[in-house]
Amino acid sequence: MSLSRKVQVGSVPVGGDAPVSIQTMWDRQVDRVDQDLVSAVNNLHAKGCDIIRFALPNIRAVDTLAPLLNSTPMPLVGDIHFDYKIALKAIEAGFHKIRINPGNIGESWKVEEIITAAAHKGTVIRIGANEGSLADSDHSSPESRSTALIEAAERNLELFEKKGFKDIVVSLKSSDIEVTYLSNKEFRKRHDYPLHLGITEAGPLIPAIVKSTIGLSDLLREGIGETIRISISDSPEYEVLTAKELLFNLKLRSGGIRIIGCPKCGRTQFDTHGFLESVREELNTLPVDLTVAVMGCSVNGPGEAKHADLGITGNGKQVLLFRRGEIIRREDICSAKEAFLEELDQLRREFSS
Amino acid sequence: MSLSRKVQVGSVPVGGDAPVSIQTMWDRQVDRVDQDLVSAVNNLHAKGCDIIRFALPNIRAVDTLAPLLNSTPMPLVGDIHFDYKIALKAIEAGFHKIRINPGNIGESWKVEEIITAAAHKGTVIRIGANEGSLADSDHSSPESRSTALIEAAERNLELFEKKGFKDIVVSLKSSDIEVTYLSNKEFRKRHDYPLHLGITEAGPLIPAIVKSTIGLSDLLREGIGETIRISISDSPEYEVLTAKELLFNLKLRSGGIRIIGCPKCGRTQFDTHGFLESVREELNTLPVDLTVAVMGCSVNGPGEAKHADLGITGNGKQVLLFRRGEIIRREDICSAKEAFLEELDQLRREFSS
Repeated sequence: MSLSRKVQVGSVPVGGDAPVSIQTMWDRQVDRVDQDLVSAVNNLHAKGCDIIRFALPNIRAVDTLAPLLNSTPMPLVGDIHFDYKIALKAIEAGFHKIRINPGNIGESWKVEEIITAAAHKGTVIRIGANEGSLADSDHSSPESRSTALIEAAERNLELFEKKGFKDIVVSLKSSDIEVTYLSNKEFRKRHDYPLHLGITEAGPLIPAIVKSTIGLSDLLREGIGETIRISISDSPEYEVLTAKELLFNLKLRSGGIRIIGCPKCGRTQFDTHGFLESVREELNTLPVDLTVAVMGCSVNGPGEAKHADLGITGNGKQVLLFRRGEIIRREDICSAKEAFLEELDQLRREFSS
Repeated sequence: MSLSRKVQVGSVPVGGDAPVSIQTMWDRQVDRVDQDLVSAVNNLHAKGCDIIRFALPNIRAVDTLAPLLNSTPMPLVGDIHFDYKIALKAIEAGFHKIRINPGNIGESWKVEEIITAAAHKGTVIRIGANEGSLADSDHSSPESRSTALIEAAERNLELFEKKGFKDIVVSLKSSDIEVTYLSNKEFRKRHDYPLHLGITEAGPLIPAIVKSTIGLSDLLREGIGETIRISISDSPEYEVLTAKELLFNLKLRSGGIRIIGCPKCGRTQFDTHGFLESVREELNTLPVDLTVAVMGCSVNGPGEAKHADLGITGNGKQVLLFRRGEIIRREDICSAKEAFLEELDQLRREFSS
């Protein structure tokens, strides 16, 4: 598959030879940009999020969120429906990208005004076609549903192409895995716009992760999909962590911790789940490539842990820490976390230097 | 891919034309079989688990767990390491299947005693080869690691074949996706034993779900894998729900609820996440095929919800309930759960009759 066109969303390139970027969407209404919001957004960035989207349900929301533009290194996307004036305001405020469904903006001249403003300001526009909002989609087969979705996107693209506007990302979203696959695959054959992938309305945590992983893996392995959002009826943090895992496992992204952990079982002599929870924040925000093993079982534990950059395995009241095959520390269980974090910090320094 | 041989694990057939069965492993030490344990195990069954495994670290554990054999419809698997006497005891007690790694049982005569006892009693044996416990596996390439894993399993199989014992399930487990794929694919070409699939040491919830989904999807789509366990450093319930979602999305299993839910976003006017949590137990144990939509957003909500068997969407202080496109109820938000469960129950009765 040839590379897509590349667009620049603030500091983050999307498409072309850029790595697949991770997006999420903020999940609560924002009344003001305070330190809590800034911290939470930057924490998502530390966990692997590249671009974050906010709903802009009205003009006031643009003013409310504008201060965030200078408080996070992440590019901000404004999600806009129905009212073109919100889009104009968001572009003027400096949102790096806006997402619209031209179909619900109304008359062409309104969309044209958005295009003119975006071209002037260098704002990227995502054109989002969504199967759920198609009035007359044919539900007879995945193929015809896919065709309907592509045609909806192409109708939306016409105005942009007429005006020569190219800073576009396209999304073709469905809650159906097959429609998602077919429509994105066919669209990429016809157009070189970067594609934003996601399975929409994927549901609660476990169903959403499973469905999104199946639905996006094949496309991503074929080189289709330049930016992704895993939609989950849960927290943005989980969306980011899932996206990062997906890209990591498909070898499309490096960076971050690889955790090898025992499943819980009746043999476990060390509470791997509790231990992982206790060091989750430190692990998820580590900006280096490391494989960490947290093993609870004398049967498989030591065998797996020896291949990790850092390993910990419990045995009764003691823990053993490994570094690439060598036991480096033996500690009382009470000091396990402290010792582990010391070694992690040591590794981080070695990797960063 | 031709069908595997079929074995009978208690009431559950594994392999041949049987549907792919779901397994989990109990995650805590069991001191006695009380009502809490029985309820928890049967709750896993209601959620979709077909077969459950318990660690049997010593002979006493067999006695402790034996009463459960008559308290659950699920076949029980005993997980045994090192001591062949535990295996003999578990077979005698009526465990429907035992899982051993013949490599750590010791001398051949001990394994032969296990085989003789299992053949007499009709007990299935899973032969589990695990990359983590291979002494000298070659870590140079996925191909050679896969070959080492297959050879370990084949060495283990020799004694069983010599004695003509065929009630075997084989597992080839690795924490590496590619080694898992290659070894199972090649093993199936050489042998017709049912394969138990799983990615071992897959880690905490999100990494484990992503990694297992990627790692097992391709094999399952090729018809390889007759029973699966998703290993997660978390609760067995999550293992079962993930396995069920995986099989459902690959169209390998029907039964159970399909939940279409909005991702949380700043547009949401109805707390879909909270609502889903409040009805999770009822949804996850529903023994019929239904698509349920829980939508929070006026943009995509109604469009998607109209294709569901039952849909709910919020709008300010009211909720609307849909059945296959038609609004059937309009309720105050306070009565949302009650109304939803009434309609769900009505649907269940219609589907069951």
